[in-house]
Amino acid sequence: MTRVGRRDESLPDLMAEAGRGALAAAALERPDAMVVSAMNPEEFVGEGNFASLLATYLGLSRVPSLRVETATSSGAAALFTAYAAVAAGLHRTVLVVGGEKMTHLPTPRVAELIGRSIDPYERSYGATMPALAGIVTRAWMTKTGATLRDISAVAVKNHANGARNPLAHFRETVSLETVLESRLVADPLRLYHCCPISDGAAAVVVRAERAPVRIAGIGQGTDYHALRYRDVFTGFRATRQAARAAFRMAGFGPERVGVAELHDAFVPFELISMEDTGLAPRGKAARMVAHGETALDGRLPVNPSGGLKARGHPLGGTGVAQLVELYWQLTGQATGRQVTAQVGLAQSIGGLATSNWVTLLEAA
Amino acid sequence: MTRVGRRDESLPDLMAEAGRGALAAAALERPDAMVVSAMNPEEFVGEGNFASLLATYLGLSRVPSLRVETATSSGAAALFTAYAAVAAGLHRTVLVVGGEKMTHLPTPRVAELIGRSIDPYERSYGATMPALAGIVTRAWMTKTGATLRDISAVAVKNHANGARNPLAHFRETVSLETVLESRLVADPLRLYHCCPISDGAAAVVVRAERAPVRIAGIGQGTDYHALRYRDVFTGFRATRQAARAAFRMAGFGPERVGVAELHDAFVPFELISMEDTGLAPRGKAARMVAHGETALDGRLPVNPSGGLKARGHPLGGTGVAQLVELYWQLTGQATGRQVTAQVGLAQSIGGLATSNWVTLLEAA
Repeated sequence: MTRVGRRDESLPDLMAEAGRGALAAAALERPDAMVVSAMNPEEFVGEGNFASLLATYLGLSRVPSLRVETATSSGAAALFTAYAAVAAGLHRTVLVVGGEKMTHLPTPRVAELIGRSIDPYERSYGATMPALAGIVTRAWMTKTGATLRDISAVAVKNHANGARNPLAHFRETVSLETVLESRLVADPLRLYHCCPISDGAAAVVVRAERAPVRIAGIGQGTDYHALRYRDVFTGFRATRQAARAAFRMAGFGPERVGVAELHDAFVPFELISMEDTGLAPRGKAARMVAHGETALDGRLPVNPSGGLKARGHPLGGTGVAQLVELYWQLTGQATGRQVTAQVGLAQSIGGLATSNWVTLLEAA
Repeated sequence: MTRVGRRDESLPDLMAEAGRGALAAAALERPDAMVVSAMNPEEFVGEGNFASLLATYLGLSRVPSLRVETATSSGAAALFTAYAAVAAGLHRTVLVVGGEKMTHLPTPRVAELIGRSIDPYERSYGATMPALAGIVTRAWMTKTGATLRDISAVAVKNHANGARNPLAHFRETVSLETVLESRLVADPLRLYHCCPISDGAAAVVVRAERAPVRIAGIGQGTDYHALRYRDVFTGFRATRQAARAAFRMAGFGPERVGVAELHDAFVPFELISMEDTGLAPRGKAARMVAHGETALDGRLPVNPSGGLKARGHPLGGTGVAQLVELYWQLTGQATGRQVTAQVGLAQSIGGLATSNWVTLLEAA
């Protein structure tokens, strides 16, 4: 994967860099096919027919390529699509490349485009992603008794991890005070509770042959597009459904997971996602963080990459970046932030948790 | 599928209509998953996270849904994705829904958005889809000796078929003179050589169980994103590659095909595609049309639906609409335009032939 952050390179340049890196790491010259994920290359960079454009860019104009999109979880959807093609015997090797470029646009324009993931009616009343995330966070805090300090501890942890990741958007540690005192974005969320706008790309190769890491399970979950239709605001049905499907396919449960990359676009989502995936008992995630259990040297390291908060969130690239991090962790290549684990869990949220994915990777 | 044309309904309304129709025809209440194809819902109708939005719209908010895009061939890519998931045993039933809505926008804006499928450098010099199609058509005419009358005969045939299709955009027959005398769009292409801008949607159910029609083969082919890099302009490598892959998977050749739906966005493409898929010997397609071999009562009816020319071309819906027509033809439900065939071939072109698909359907 590329370094994530404010990048001058074009989106095809970034994605080609990641794609070439994955092919080199897999010692593969030409894959049978490509699956590309970018959430909105049309409006972010003005390009359409993007899977084909990227194939030519990579010097792979003979390689069939298609694009998959499920909003901010598109990278995970691309892995599923590649996995299905290989598992069906239609291809033996598939290159998955995800990425996004946004930092060249004004922030309000980026927020507007990301906000299109929200139900049109709620959007018409001014709902934004941070506003809806704030509502969910307040509901979850009320139910679990978690405090702002609990939530802020996640940001402190993820920044500490990001400081050890040479590819992270943010490489500075932050103090609890800095997080708590940062400016309000959408009550109760403050600036340091929110992920940055990032450019970047990531890629993996899915192959039929035995590999250092195997895909043990993949599941997708969904929810009503509109927040107002949902029964509960204190967790995400889409994550629970995705985790159930992934664990069923894997044939084991959350107790085997040794490392996780969770979708902390807003840091309380890391806590909510721990509970939704079964990595934490309901209502206990905040305590686990407070006790250091999810730190790099804890029992279950969460977001060793720095997560969306510090590694950054290049939308269509994020779901793939999570898998790259887990691959590196499971194969002992996560220099400076290496943890010990046999099984990794990646969880990716699309829109306001309307199209979520859980992927389980296992070291061979 | 819906009636194609200038529609007042919203894109989700049109796609939900098609989706409900397919579920009813398959006697299925809730599919295991959905695959959605729309080329550019963000810019055509201002909606993102579209697969999730559509699932909620269909009352299927619990059904995992993802969107697939390969420009104007997205519908065929969606079928491939659904097929792979079913063939891999990941789902037993998948609803595929494709559609697009464009007629509410000014034509120059639609042309601009479709033009994004073209290589950025060629686009920067003013290349448009009709302009590039005109170059290809001139090269092909020079090589094969086909005339403007030959090409125009395809438009006459497809309008005649469309007149028999209650869902077609254009339901009027046209004379050869009308086609030849229509205004010039991009030499040698005249207005009646070009498909209209259409709204519409189509849907199919892919299932693991035995069904009236089986998917015998699917192949994707590609080419350089830029026209200027290609070796030959007189055919499309992407179609040839897709056809080779589809026939290899099916285990039979073009001689078994009894009906075809080809991507006649510009009518000469129907002739070029007949040659590229092997349905016509190289350089002989025009003669086959002139002899009536591809008419409804001919040896090999091509575009009985009216094709993109007369049925219409709702971009993300077109690849699926072709499959619906073949399904109806193979199961004797194409009232008013029924042909006799056991095997149908659908060919879909993405961009200026950078991401093409060939799908083979066979009656059980």
